[in-house]
Amino acid sequence: MDANEAIRRFRQRDDGYTWEGVDRLAYKQESAAPFRGITRQTLFQRSDLAGELRYFEIAPRGHSTLERHEHTHAVLILRGEGRCLVGDAVHAIRAHDLVTVPPQTWHQFRAGEEPLGFLCMVDALRDRPELPDDAALAELHAQPPVAAFLAEE
Amino acid sequence: MDANEAIRRFRQRDDGYTWEGVDRLAYKQESAAPFRGITRQTLFQRSDLAGELRYFEIAPRGHSTLERHEHTHAVLILRGEGRCLVGDAVHAIRAHDLVTVPPQTWHQFRAGEEPLGFLCMVDALRDRPELPDDAALAELHAQPPVAAFLAEE
Repeated sequence: MDANEAIRRFRQRDDGYTWEGVDRLAYKQESAAPFRGITRQTLFQRSDLAGELRYFEIAPRGHSTLERHEHTHAVLILRGEGRCLVGDAVHAIRAHDLVTVPPQTWHQFRAGEEPLGFLCMVDALRDRPELPDDAALAELHAQPPVAAFLAEE
Repeated sequence: MDANEAIRRFRQRDDGYTWEGVDRLAYKQESAAPFRGITRQTLFQRSDLAGELRYFEIAPRGHSTLERHEHTHAVLILRGEGRCLVGDAVHAIRAHDLVTVPPQTWHQFRAGEEPLGFLCMVDALRDRPELPDDAALAELHAQPPVAAFLAEE
């Protein structure tokens, strides 16, 4: 089975959602890292598609990297619940909600008490994410709801 | 609420999956038409995204149009179960399975006893679908599994 097969089957496992023929990339679990408990699976990436569709799954209480970039994220929550930061607003999110992350907007996803899984459509041609420097972090932390969101562990 | 909102909420209704700020396009229910019991919602369509993400929902025993085109379909089943024709093969499909429809490949989705809902990623710039002419239909019906699939009502 590979990405050229017409059908690739979903497999729910105890440790998360998986699909046959799709590699799961597990990031390191380090509290000092800018992410915690998150895996990535690229579901669709083809030379004849201008977009890519990826699946991210965040373990309970884990979070994605706080970052921004020029490309847009088009997100559909597939499982679980949690919250996300988009710009200077924190939103509760649950299964099947849609999240749009516009260009150059700081964003982070955090899982609640269950795994948070979401689809993310991006352009195949896109820039690399930027991490916040000290000045950007200071600006984010100057906003109390954002600071509270980022401070959670 | 519009497509520029950061969050658009999912709303499960008795008559199907919906999202706030997303129009649902219902096709006519005519047995003579090449589709039956299918609605379309465009979840993501933005000038800064090269792809679009749409949600289709097919009523029990309904089906999508039998068609082909140059652009590729990248499909993730979101709810229900059913079967799909891709080229000359019929596949059972269920929630979260992935379906790839390559260029110029005849395809059709059919719902089982429950609504069949699926996400479909396509390029924003794409060609229009082609319907089978008599010769193409004859070729499809010459293959017994395909003929059986197409003959169901």
